[in-house]
Amino acid sequence: MSEQQKNWFSYPVKVHPHHTDCAGIVWHGAYINWMEEARIEYFQQRGLEYSDFVKIGYELPVVDLALRYHKSMKMGMKAIVKTRVDRIARVKIIWDYRIESPEGQELYVSGTVTLVPVDREKGRIARKFPPRLQLALKEDLD
Amino acid sequence: MSEQQKNWFSYPVKVHPHHTDCAGIVWHGAYINWMEEARIEYFQQRGLEYSDFVKIGYELPVVDLALRYHKSMKMGMKAIVKTRVDRIARVKIIWDYRIESPEGQELYVSGTVTLVPVDREKGRIARKFPPRLQLALKEDLD
Amino acid sequence: MSEQQKNWFSYPVKVHPHHTDCAGIVWHGAYINWMEEARIEYFQQRGLEYSDFVKIGYELPVVDLALRYHKSMKMGMKAIVKTRVDRIARVKIIWDYRIESPEGQELYVSGTVTLVPVDREKGRIARKFPPRLQLALKEDLD
Amino acid sequence: MSEQQKNWFSYPVKVHPHHTDCAGIVWHGAYINWMEEARIEYFQQRGLEYSDFVKIGYELPVVDLALRYHKSMKMGMKAIVKTRVDRIARVKIIWDYRIESPEGQELYVSGTVTLVPVDREKGRIARKFPPRLQLALKEDLD
Repeated sequence: MSEQQKNWFSYPVKVHPHHTDCAGIVWHGAYINWMEEARIEYFQQRGLEYSDFVKIGYELPVVDLALRYHKSMKMGMKAIVKTRVDRIARVKIIWDYRIESPEGQELYVSGTVTLVPVDREKGRIARKFPPRLQLALKEDLD
Repeated sequence: MSEQQKNWFSYPVKVHPHHTDCAGIVWHGAYINWMEEARIEYFQQRGLEYSDFVKIGYELPVVDLALRYHKSMKMGMKAIVKTRVDRIARVKIIWDYRIESPEGQELYVSGTVTLVPVDREKGRIARKFPPRLQLALKEDLD
Repeated sequence: MSEQQKNWFSYPVKVHPHHTDCAGIVWHGAYINWMEEARIEYFQQRGLEYSDFVKIGYELPVVDLALRYHKSMKMGMKAIVKTRVDRIARVKIIWDYRIESPEGQELYVSGTVTLVPVDREKGRIARKFPPRLQLALKEDLD
Repeated sequence: MSEQQKNWFSYPVKVHPHHTDCAGIVWHGAYINWMEEARIEYFQQRGLEYSDFVKIGYELPVVDLALRYHKSMKMGMKAIVKTRVDRIARVKIIWDYRIESPEGQELYVSGTVTLVPVDREKGRIARKFPPRLQLALKEDLD
């Protein structure tokens, strides 16, 4: 399946006062909360509850994050956090993000986030995906 | 209408990693974000978009906050933030809160939050509710 | 020692953009971060490194929190978070807080926070203070 | 002055519970707070109080952010947020960051952040640096 055909996972959000700063717009770090939430909901829809993944001894820390801020969001505005797995390189999962207005005319933020599975007991990056994660990423690995 | 009959407004939430701390539970300050979100959605359902209220020159700052933490929430758990206007004393709006498990068997947090309208231009507490807020609080004022 | 004579522990802070919201003032939940930091520094000055306390199997969760917001703080302002142990009731540690301007003329926030020690292995409130915590609270227990 | 000779500005930080997540480490978004604080202190040391800059009608929003997470930080750990202006391209200010252990043996996070001055009244990017910002960046512009 080509990149172009890959569907985005959509996670709707709304700007509340605690997301904003004194410039009257969403504080640049607040988008990261939404991006994490979108990722976790993505996994859940594919059968992986993140808290279960933690219970079986793994973590999925962020090792790389790159964001571009195109247009600011203000109090009360709604947006869709769109995400998809762009590609998988060994055990690195590289995600694409686009935070857009509900109808898609405006792009607020775009970016990529890279995760790696960590084996908590060994305290290091897992050499391969644990089966449960492998299953959740099935369609992204093809 | 007696307190007992007053309906709670329900706002569903879910624990994501950014809400938790190293104790593995929701960090005590994180509930305050959810409580604010619930309040703003409450107003919206009653016709007051908070960002519009700000545009016409008002704020609704918190002047008092009291929380009791009954039981901790963990990663992945869902809850309902229940809120209602407990009473109105002149221009003080006193809200009740209960953060409960989805079926209501568990109580995680209970509390009250007091807001007052502030006239931004005058830089002080408004002497009476602006009409738009008055309207949104109509059923709470009876 | 009477309450009046008890010294306050002082923790200096400064308002940065991420503390503020679209009303141009410190967001009401942001003070809770500072209050936690002040408490941890208090313990450290009395010989208890909180991360060590966690390592030996305990937590000190907040079970009660009450804040009054007297005056708002703006971007760039400095303040002193003053805290002290107001009293100890069995295993409850009740802290007093005052967040004031550097010279003490202005009071921004006052409040109380109650902590209890939790034994992580047993998953419940400890029946008495672990020795290390007892030692750190020595002057508050007299 | 060559890049190698440019001094880093150092801003000391410490991990408190509210910075951590259920993985027991600093949550990846929490570093962004520290990075912002370091930048504002940098400007202050060069005579520009950020709140004054806002008062005269400007903002300095982040338009680009790229972070690499090398090693995780745990509760109670201290670090130095090191920053410097890497280069200035027209009105873009590109900052370098390194978050290191106090003695510099460990690198936790490295990254870059790009800011642009925005003229609030016109609602768009300023065509040149306002004089006060120009002055604060004097040694970076040479």
